[in-house]
Amino acid sequence: MSPAAPRAGAARGGRLGEQSLARAALTYLAEPGDPALGALLGICEPAEVLAAIKADMLPGTGPGCGDSPASRKALEHAFARWRARLPGLPDDAGIAAACRGGIRLVCPGDPQWPDRLDELGQARPYALWLRGRGDLPSACLRSVSMVGSRAATGYGAHVAGQIAADLGERGWAVVSGGAYGIDAATHRGALVTSAPTIAVLACGVDYPYPAGHADLFADIAGHGLVVSEWPPGRHPARLRFLVRNRVIAALSCGTVIMEAGERSGALNTARHAAELGRPLMAVPGPVTSRQSAGCHQIIREWGATCVTCAADIIEMVSPLGGPDAVAAAGGQEPTAWPTRRLAADPGSPSRDELDPDSARVLDALPARGAAGTSTIAVEAGVDLDTVLRCLGLLAGHGFIERCDRGWRLRGR
Amino acid sequence: MSPAAPRAGAARGGRLGEQSLARAALTYLAEPGDPALGALLGICEPAEVLAAIKADMLPGTGPGCGDSPASRKALEHAFARWRARLPGLPDDAGIAAACRGGIRLVCPGDPQWPDRLDELGQARPYALWLRGRGDLPSACLRSVSMVGSRAATGYGAHVAGQIAADLGERGWAVVSGGAYGIDAATHRGALVTSAPTIAVLACGVDYPYPAGHADLFADIAGHGLVVSEWPPGRHPARLRFLVRNRVIAALSCGTVIMEAGERSGALNTARHAAELGRPLMAVPGPVTSRQSAGCHQIIREWGATCVTCAADIIEMVSPLGGPDAVAAAGGQEPTAWPTRRLAADPGSPSRDELDPDSARVLDALPARGAAGTSTIAVEAGVDLDTVLRCLGLLAGHGFIERCDRGWRLRGR
Repeated sequence: MSPAAPRAGAARGGRLGEQSLARAALTYLAEPGDPALGALLGICEPAEVLAAIKADMLPGTGPGCGDSPASRKALEHAFARWRARLPGLPDDAGIAAACRGGIRLVCPGDPQWPDRLDELGQARPYALWLRGRGDLPSACLRSVSMVGSRAATGYGAHVAGQIAADLGERGWAVVSGGAYGIDAATHRGALVTSAPTIAVLACGVDYPYPAGHADLFADIAGHGLVVSEWPPGRHPARLRFLVRNRVIAALSCGTVIMEAGERSGALNTARHAAELGRPLMAVPGPVTSRQSAGCHQIIREWGATCVTCAADIIEMVSPLGGPDAVAAAGGQEPTAWPTRRLAADPGSPSRDELDPDSARVLDALPARGAAGTSTIAVEAGVDLDTVLRCLGLLAGHGFIERCDRGWRLRGR
Repeated sequence: MSPAAPRAGAARGGRLGEQSLARAALTYLAEPGDPALGALLGICEPAEVLAAIKADMLPGTGPGCGDSPASRKALEHAFARWRARLPGLPDDAGIAAACRGGIRLVCPGDPQWPDRLDELGQARPYALWLRGRGDLPSACLRSVSMVGSRAATGYGAHVAGQIAADLGERGWAVVSGGAYGIDAATHRGALVTSAPTIAVLACGVDYPYPAGHADLFADIAGHGLVVSEWPPGRHPARLRFLVRNRVIAALSCGTVIMEAGERSGALNTARHAAELGRPLMAVPGPVTSRQSAGCHQIIREWGATCVTCAADIIEMVSPLGGPDAVAAAGGQEPTAWPTRRLAADPGSPSRDELDPDSARVLDALPARGAAGTSTIAVEAGVDLDTVLRCLGLLAGHGFIERCDRGWRLRGR
């Protein structure tokens, strides 16, 4: 089996290629975050893995492929789990049929894949199911995750909504779950602005859980995106929420905890953000409220930053000295979404002030039209990690932007 | 002029010695924290300084004595300021008369002087006027300053009172000002316990400011101490509150800010605590409340610790691994004041586990009765700094306690 290389454009034109179809099938067979499948996908093409499962033929030897008796045993168990779901696996036509009604699949390497998720390593999602027309990588570039208690207080719901609305007005998207309480208040706050809002569910993107949020999810799909690692129709389960939390943390520039009891699931999302090295923030509340106890705990014990408003948050997640940090510090006119969302302002570095790699990557972009990530890397003569870092930086400073065909220069 | 050495026992027996009388007179003539007087007292005996002011004879040369034309000029101005108050200076009998009705004077070096104040260096008070029978050094050993907004909310007043009461129940005294709002709520909370509470005023200890707090100050004097650097009868003034704040921060083991607007005077006290290297803490509140904005600001920007209850605070101000830290962490039965206030518990080190200096100091205490600090230092063969450090440690671990005649062993 050959190593899996990112396959850019697998879903181009709305039709799924072989590897994307295989990844879609794997979302039906395996639970997200399964370490055995993560290890296999690090060394085999998805279609090879799928064929091996169908044929019940364990892959040969190699790291992650069961080269010790113990890991071989673990892989046999994993195969048994995955094969148990084969009877419910739709055929290729069925999978293609799932990609209707505004639902689509994005896979690692696709232009619509948010590269940030790659930082999850082997725990990276096999693929993401999306509902809505929003541009996920673009929205993620300037986004903040905000999560908290289902049993939110009036205070928590009010502040979450206000912060999400203020973030939206300044051109920042929010990422949250789909639960009652803080999650819902966050989305509702964002929905009053034109910024996208992203709901990451622990069930199919077409599965209204909780049922009372069917309309909210439709609104979110209309303004942003409903996202899931589980295939359409899949119901939620307790453990799925915990697995899902790593995606909420990994999609955004930083995570804000707004109301969380001391054992709240939101603290699990907070831990993922901290493990990813992303800014972790918490909004304080009355010390007399149990719903704020988790927030105070992570401020005191985990070093989460105490934030009280959208400006505090933007200051934490913006690149140092970038336009957002300057605006957050100086209270400058907020940047509106989407027309001026990445507008470079006088506080942004000039072309001459860029680091050598970023300058080379910027030079590698075509004067007109767009280029894919790997094309730019080759043109600039830098490796893939470097090109991803530089493209993020350049987009953050407003030099370039994502588009369907990769990256393009922005008029300044 | 000869260097000023601490004169232990100057006020022993209730009668003021020559140097204490001079310090008392200086509190009438100079504003506390006057850098010119602080410098002079670092090199001259108080009585010499007083005589020089009365005679209008500037001291000779030497650091702080005006050995450059500029500092000579500053000293001349200071002398003019101090001499302007000579007509209102009571004679020795008048000063002695002020020490009645529960009012007394303590001076640096007295057994009742809290050594902690010496960390203020040249800004150390010239002397302190006390009202009440409380033991100031003993109360300070286990004390927390809590200050905040005059315009406290119901939330702030409730939490301040609760925390002060919880601290008192665990054997910790509180130190605060005498203002409406958080200061008053703190004292009232402490007053429901048997722990002492200490009010540091910016006017004479007999001057009821605000007038509505006359009864409160009487209660505090009955349970603890009303403390001031200003002589009896002196009225408060705006700048005096700021000067006073350094004493609030210096008296205790750490400072807690409970509700403070972004320009609150409480943040001045917070700055003093930080400058003294004492733990600085803040209690969060709703981000929708302006009265908590200063608390959130110092948590985010100054690194103040976010605390929500007495246990959080005790954990911050207790010596690592000491009985209080153990109790705070493990939720053990709180230590009661005063009967068991320093009771050594199984978490405290045994005699054999003490560091060599502390063991030597402990051995130097008489088996019965008490000994003064300098006697113990001579007996133990350690210097004054070492003996003070060790005595504090031993008291913190419950081996010894303060008494009228110095230090004595506690039954374990």
